[in-house]
Amino acid sequence: MSDTTQHAMNTACPLCSGDGGHLILRTPQFRVVYADDPAYPCFVRVIWNDHIRELSDLAPDEQGVLMRAVFSIERVMRDVLQPLKMNLASFGNVVPHVHWHLIPRWADDAHFPQPSWAPRQREGVAHGASQRDALAHAIRIALADPAPAS
Amino acid sequence: MSDTTQHAMNTACPLCSGDGGHLILRTPQFRVVYADDPAYPCFVRVIWNDHIRELSDLAPDEQGVLMRAVFSIERVMRDVLQPLKMNLASFGNVVPHVHWHLIPRWADDAHFPQPSWAPRQREGVAHGASQRDALAHAIRIALADPAPAS
Repeated sequence: MSDTTQHAMNTACPLCSGDGGHLILRTPQFRVVYADDPAYPCFVRVIWNDHIRELSDLAPDEQGVLMRAVFSIERVMRDVLQPLKMNLASFGNVVPHVHWHLIPRWADDAHFPQPSWAPRQREGVAHGASQRDALAHAIRIALADPAPAS
Repeated sequence: MSDTTQHAMNTACPLCSGDGGHLILRTPQFRVVYADDPAYPCFVRVIWNDHIRELSDLAPDEQGVLMRAVFSIERVMRDVLQPLKMNLASFGNVVPHVHWHLIPRWADDAHFPQPSWAPRQREGVAHGASQRDALAHAIRIALADPAPAS
Protein backbone atom coordinates (compact mmCIF):
# COMPACT_ATOMS: atom_id res chain seq x y z
CA MET A 1 0.00 0.00 0.00
CA SER A 2 1.56 3.25 -1.10
CA ASP A 3 -0.69 5.64 0.85
CA THR A 4 -0.35 6.39 4.55
CA THR A 5 -3.94 5.65 5.60
CA GLN A 6 -4.30 2.81 8.08
CA HIS A 7 -6.41 0.00 6.61
CA ALA A 8 -7.68 -3.32 7.88
CA MET A 9 -5.24 -5.72 6.25
CA ASN A 10 -4.61 -9.43 5.91
CA THR A 11 -0.93 -10.11 5.31
CA ALA A 12 -1.73 -13.31 3.37
CA CYS A 13 -4.00 -11.47 0.91
CA PRO A 14 -2.54 -10.42 -2.45
CA LEU A 15 -4.97 -7.47 -2.60
CA CYS A 16 -3.62 -6.25 0.76
CA SER A 17 0.05 -6.70 -0.13
CA GLY A 18 -0.16 -5.32 -3.69
CA ASP A 19 -2.21 -3.07 -5.94
CA GLY A 20 -3.82 -6.03 -7.73
CA GLY A 21 -3.05 -4.69 -11.19
CA HIS A 22 -1.68 -1.68 -13.04
CA LEU A 23 -2.74 1.33 -10.94
CA ILE A 24 -5.01 3.92 -12.60
CA LEU A 25 -6.30 5.77 -9.55
CA ARG A 26 -6.32 5.47 -5.78
CA THR A 27 -8.74 7.03 -3.30
CA PRO A 28 -8.75 6.60 0.50
CA GLN A 29 -11.41 3.86 0.13
CA PHE A 30 -10.67 2.02 -3.11
CA ARG A 31 -8.37 1.90 -6.10
CA VAL A 32 -8.90 1.32 -9.82
CA VAL A 33 -6.46 -0.86 -11.78
CA TYR A 34 -6.04 -2.54 -15.13
CA ALA A 35 -6.17 -6.32 -14.74
CA ASP A 36 -3.62 -6.65 -17.59
CA ASP A 37 -5.50 -9.56 -19.17
CA PRO A 38 -4.05 -10.03 -22.70
CA ALA A 39 -7.48 -10.96 -24.12
CA TYR A 40 -9.12 -7.88 -22.53
CA PRO A 41 -6.65 -4.97 -22.47
CA CYS A 42 -9.21 -2.59 -20.92
CA PHE A 43 -10.43 -5.03 -18.24
CA VAL A 44 -10.63 -2.81 -15.11
CA ARG A 45 -10.80 -3.83 -11.46
CA VAL A 46 -12.18 -1.67 -8.66
CA ILE A 47 -10.71 -2.91 -5.38
CA TRP A 48 -11.80 -1.87 -1.89
CA ASN A 49 -8.71 -0.95 0.14
CA ASP A 50 -9.75 -2.58 3.43
CA HIS A 51 -9.73 -6.35 3.64
CA ILE A 52 -13.51 -6.91 3.57
CA ARG A 53 -14.81 -10.33 2.56
CA GLU A 54 -18.30 -9.68 1.18
CA LEU A 55 -20.02 -6.65 -0.33
CA SER A 56 -22.74 -6.96 2.31
CA ASP A 57 -20.05 -6.52 5.00
CA LEU A 58 -19.56 -2.94 3.82
CA ALA A 59 -21.62 -0.22 5.53
CA PRO A 60 -24.44 1.19 3.37
CA ASP A 61 -22.55 4.45 2.76
CA GLU A 62 -19.46 2.46 1.74
CA GLN A 63 -21.55 0.35 -0.65
CA GLY A 64 -22.81 3.61 -2.13
CA VAL A 65 -19.30 5.02 -2.57
CA LEU A 66 -18.13 1.81 -4.25
CA MET A 67 -21.09 1.34 -6.56
CA ARG A 68 -21.24 4.99 -7.63
CA ALA A 69 -17.58 4.61 -8.64
CA VAL A 70 -18.25 1.32 -10.44
CA PHE A 71 -21.19 2.72 -12.42
CA SER A 72 -19.30 5.93 -13.15
CA ILE A 73 -16.39 3.89 -14.55
CA GLU A 74 -18.79 1.70 -16.53
CA ARG A 75 -20.18 4.86 -18.13
CA VAL A 76 -16.69 6.12 -18.98
CA MET A 77 -15.72 2.74 -20.45
CA ARG A 78 -18.80 2.83 -22.65
CA ASP A 79 -18.09 6.40 -23.76
CA VAL A 80 -14.42 5.78 -24.58
CA LEU A 81 -14.52 2.19 -25.89
CA GLN A 82 -18.06 1.81 -27.31
CA PRO A 83 -18.27 -1.90 -26.38
CA LEU A 84 -21.21 -4.05 -27.45
CA LYS A 85 -21.92 -4.84 -23.77
CA MET A 86 -20.47 -4.22 -20.31
CA ASN A 87 -19.93 -7.13 -17.90
CA LEU A 88 -19.62 -6.70 -14.11
CA ALA A 89 -18.74 -9.39 -11.61
CA SER A 90 -17.60 -9.79 -8.01
CA PHE A 91 -16.60 -13.35 -7.02
CA GLY A 92 -13.67 -13.44 -4.58
CA ASN A 93 -13.58 -17.24 -4.41
CA VAL A 94 -9.80 -17.24 -4.77
CA VAL A 95 -9.10 -13.86 -3.17
CA PRO A 96 -11.92 -13.05 -0.70
CA HIS A 97 -11.27 -9.30 -0.59
CA VAL A 98 -14.01 -7.09 -2.12
CA HIS A 99 -13.26 -6.25 -5.75
CA TRP A 100 -15.24 -5.72 -8.94
CA HIS A 101 -14.34 -6.84 -12.43
CA LEU A 102 -15.48 -4.47 -15.22
CA ILE A 103 -15.05 -6.02 -18.65
CA PRO A 104 -16.01 -4.38 -21.95
CA ARG A 105 -17.23 -7.01 -24.42
CA TRP A 106 -17.45 -7.30 -28.20
CA ALA A 107 -19.04 -9.94 -30.44
CA ASP A 108 -15.63 -11.03 -31.78
CA ASP A 109 -13.78 -11.17 -28.46
CA ALA A 110 -12.42 -14.46 -27.12
CA HIS A 111 -15.54 -15.60 -25.21
CA PHE A 112 -18.63 -13.72 -26.45
CA PRO A 113 -21.49 -14.28 -25.75
CA GLN A 114 -20.26 -16.31 -22.78
CA PRO A 115 -18.78 -14.65 -19.68
CA SER A 116 -15.01 -14.27 -19.97
CA TRP A 117 -14.56 -17.07 -17.39
CA ALA A 118 -16.24 -19.61 -19.69
CA PRO A 119 -14.29 -21.70 -22.21
CA ARG A 120 -12.76 -19.62 -24.99
CA GLN A 121 -14.97 -19.50 -28.09
CA ARG A 122 -12.31 -18.34 -30.55
CA GLU A 123 -8.87 -16.69 -30.73
CA GLY A 124 -10.69 -13.40 -30.37
CA VAL A 125 -9.87 -9.74 -30.93
CA ALA A 126 -8.24 -7.96 -27.97
CA HIS A 127 -10.13 -4.69 -28.30
CA GLY A 128 -8.94 -1.44 -26.74
CA ALA A 129 -5.18 -2.07 -26.51
CA SER A 130 -4.44 1.35 -27.99
CA GLN A 131 -7.03 3.10 -25.78
CA ARG A 132 -5.69 2.24 -22.32
CA ASP A 133 -4.09 5.63 -21.71
CA ALA A 134 -7.17 7.52 -22.92
CA LEU A 135 -9.47 5.37 -20.78
CA ALA A 136 -7.30 5.74 -17.67
CA HIS A 137 -7.27 9.52 -18.17
CA ALA A 138 -11.06 9.64 -18.57
CA ILE A 139 -11.56 7.50 -15.44
CA ARG A 140 -9.35 9.83 -13.40
CA ILE A 141 -11.35 12.84 -14.58
CA ALA A 142 -14.72 11.16 -13.91
CA LEU A 143 -13.82 10.07 -10.38
CA ALA A 144 -12.27 13.39 -9.47
CA ASP A 145 -15.67 14.91 -10.25
CA PRO A 146 -18.17 12.03 -9.98
CA ALA A 147 -21.20 14.27 -10.52
CA PRO A 148 -20.18 16.91 -13.05
CA ALA A 149 -22.62 19.74 -13.77
CA SER A 150 -23.15 18.62 -17.35
CA MET B 1 -45.91 -9.07 -16.70
CA SER B 2 -48.52 -9.67 -14.03
CA ASP B 3 -48.69 -6.17 -12.57
CA THR B 4 -50.51 -3.24 -14.11
CA THR B 5 -47.64 -0.75 -14.16
CA GLN B 6 -46.59 0.41 -17.61
CA HIS B 7 -42.98 -0.50 -18.32
CA ALA B 8 -40.60 0.12 -21.18
CA MET B 9 -40.66 -3.25 -22.92
CA ASN B 10 -39.01 -5.05 -25.80
CA THR B 11 -41.29 -7.75 -27.17
CA ALA B 12 -38.30 -9.84 -28.36
CA CYS B 13 -36.77 -9.92 -24.86
CA PRO B 14 -37.40 -12.97 -22.66
CA LEU B 15 -37.08 -10.81 -19.53
CA CYS B 16 -39.86 -8.56 -20.85
CA SER B 17 -42.18 -11.39 -21.88
CA GLY B 18 -41.66 -13.58 -18.79
CA ASP B 19 -40.55 -13.47 -15.17
CA GLY B 20 -37.12 -14.96 -15.96
CA GLY B 21 -37.37 -17.63 -13.27
CA HIS B 22 -39.50 -18.82 -10.37
CA LEU B 23 -40.96 -15.63 -8.86
CA ILE B 24 -40.08 -14.84 -5.23
CA LEU B 25 -41.07 -11.18 -5.06
CA ARG B 26 -42.09 -8.35 -7.36
CA THR B 27 -41.85 -4.60 -6.74
CA PRO B 28 -42.82 -1.81 -9.15
CA GLN B 29 -39.16 -1.51 -10.21
CA PHE B 30 -37.69 -5.03 -10.08
CA ARG B 31 -38.45 -8.65 -9.26
CA VAL B 32 -36.54 -11.41 -7.52
CA VAL B 33 -36.60 -14.96 -8.90
CA TYR B 34 -34.95 -18.32 -8.49
CA ALA B 35 -32.91 -19.18 -11.59
CA ASP B 36 -33.81 -22.89 -11.09
CA ASP B 37 -30.27 -24.04 -11.86
CA PRO B 38 -30.01 -27.70 -10.74
CA ALA B 39 -26.39 -27.24 -9.60
CA TYR B 40 -27.31 -24.12 -7.57
CA PRO B 41 -30.83 -24.45 -6.14
CA CYS B 42 -30.63 -21.08 -4.33
CA PHE B 43 -29.20 -19.14 -7.31
CA VAL B 44 -31.26 -15.91 -7.26
CA ARG B 45 -31.73 -13.30 -10.00
CA VAL B 46 -32.73 -9.69 -9.42
CA ILE B 47 -34.24 -8.35 -12.65
CA TRP B 48 -35.06 -4.73 -13.40
CA ASN B 49 -38.61 -4.55 -14.80
CA ASP B 50 -37.96 -1.98 -17.52
CA HIS B 51 -35.99 -3.04 -20.56
CA ILE B 52 -32.73 -1.22 -19.76
CA ARG B 53 -29.53 -2.39 -21.43
CA GLU B 54 -26.74 -1.35 -19.06
CA LEU B 55 -26.59 -0.59 -15.33
CA SER B 56 -25.14 2.82 -16.17
CA ASP B 57 -28.32 3.57 -18.16
CA LEU B 58 -30.29 3.56 -14.90
CA ALA B 59 -30.72 6.90 -13.09
CA PRO B 60 -28.62 7.22 -9.90
CA ASP B 61 -31.67 6.78 -7.65
CA GLU B 62 -32.65 3.64 -9.62
CA GLN B 63 -29.12 2.27 -9.28
CA GLY B 64 -29.44 2.86 -5.54
CA VAL B 65 -32.80 1.06 -5.34
CA LEU B 66 -31.43 -1.91 -7.27
CA MET B 67 -28.13 -2.23 -5.42
CA ARG B 68 -29.66 -1.81 -1.96
CA ALA B 69 -31.98 -4.70 -2.85
CA VAL B 70 -29.09 -6.80 -4.20
CA PHE B 71 -26.95 -6.26 -1.10
CA SER B 72 -29.92 -6.82 1.18
CA ILE B 73 -30.62 -10.15 -0.55
CA GLU B 74 -26.94 -11.08 -0.39
CA ARG B 75 -27.06 -10.53 3.37
CA VAL B 76 -30.19 -12.69 3.70
CA MET B 77 -28.64 -15.45 1.60
CA ARG B 78 -25.57 -15.42 3.86
CA ASP B 79 -27.73 -15.52 7.01
CA VAL B 80 -29.98 -18.35 5.80
CA LEU B 81 -27.53 -20.47 3.78
CA GLN B 82 -24.12 -19.77 5.40
CA PRO B 83 -22.24 -20.16 2.09
CA LEU B 84 -18.46 -20.06 1.93
CA LYS B 85 -18.64 -17.10 -0.49
CA MET B 86 -21.20 -15.01 -2.35
CA ASN B 87 -20.81 -14.38 -6.09
CA LEU B 88 -22.48 -11.49 -7.94
CA ALA B 89 -22.50 -10.89 -11.68
CA SER B 90 -24.29 -8.87 -14.33
CA PHE B 91 -23.46 -9.80 -17.94
CA GLY B 92 -26.44 -9.53 -20.27
CA ASN B 93 -24.51 -10.69 -23.33
CA VAL B 94 -27.31 -13.03 -24.35
CA VAL B 95 -30.21 -11.07 -22.83
CA PRO B 96 -29.26 -7.37 -22.68
CA HIS B 97 -31.84 -6.42 -20.04
CA VAL B 98 -30.44 -5.39 -16.62
CA HIS B 99 -30.31 -8.34 -14.22
CA TRP B 100 -28.06 -9.55 -11.42
CA HIS B 101 -27.03 -13.11 -10.66
CA LEU B 102 -26.55 -13.87 -6.93
CA ILE B 103 -24.95 -17.26 -6.38
CA PRO B 104 -24.04 -18.75 -3.01
CA ARG B 105 -20.89 -20.86 -3.27
CA TRP B 106 -19.36 -23.75 -1.35
CA ALA B 107 -15.97 -25.47 -1.65
CA ASP B 108 -17.60 -28.72 -2.83
CA ASP B 109 -20.01 -27.22 -5.36
CA ALA B 110 -19.71 -27.98 -9.08
CA HIS B 111 -17.27 -25.18 -10.01
CA PHE B 112 -15.52 -23.84 -6.91
CA PRO B 113 -13.18 -21.92 -6.81
CA GLN B 114 -13.98 -20.97 -10.40
CA PRO B 115 -17.02 -18.84 -11.29
CA SER B 116 -20.06 -20.98 -12.04
CA TRP B 117 -19.69 -20.15 -15.77
CA ALA B 118 -16.28 -21.83 -15.92
CA PRO B 119 -15.84 -25.53 -16.78
CA ARG B 120 -17.28 -27.85 -14.14
CA GLN B 121 -14.65 -28.98 -11.62
CA ARG B 122 -16.57 -31.97 -10.21
CA GLU B 123 -20.08 -33.45 -9.93
CA GLY B 124 -20.58 -31.14 -6.99
CA VAL B 125 -23.04 -30.80 -4.13
CA ALA B 126 -26.22 -28.80 -4.91
CA HIS B 127 -26.42 -26.97 -1.59
CA GLY B 128 -29.60 -25.37 -0.31
CA ALA B 129 -32.25 -27.44 -2.14
CA SER B 130 -34.24 -27.87 1.09
CA GLN B 131 -33.88 -24.19 2.04
CA ARG B 132 -35.53 -22.53 -0.94
CA ASP B 133 -38.82 -21.82 0.83
CA ALA B 134 -37.07 -20.46 3.94
CA LEU B 135 -34.81 -18.26 1.83
CA ALA B 136 -37.69 -16.93 -0.27
CA HIS B 137 -39.61 -16.11 2.92
CA ALA B 138 -36.61 -14.29 4.41
CA ILE B 139 -36.06 -12.31 1.20
CA ARG B 140 -39.70 -11.18 1.18
CA ILE B 141 -39.40 -10.00 4.79
CA ALA B 142 -36.07 -8.22 4.20
CA LEU B 143 -37.30 -6.34 1.12
CA ALA B 144 -40.59 -5.37 2.73
CA ASP B 145 -38.54 -3.66 5.42
CA PRO B 146 -35.11 -3.05 3.89
CA ALA B 147 -33.78 -1.15 6.93
CA PRO B 148 -35.26 -2.89 9.99
CA ALA B 149 -34.66 -1.38 13.43
CA SER B 150 -32.57 -4.37 14.53
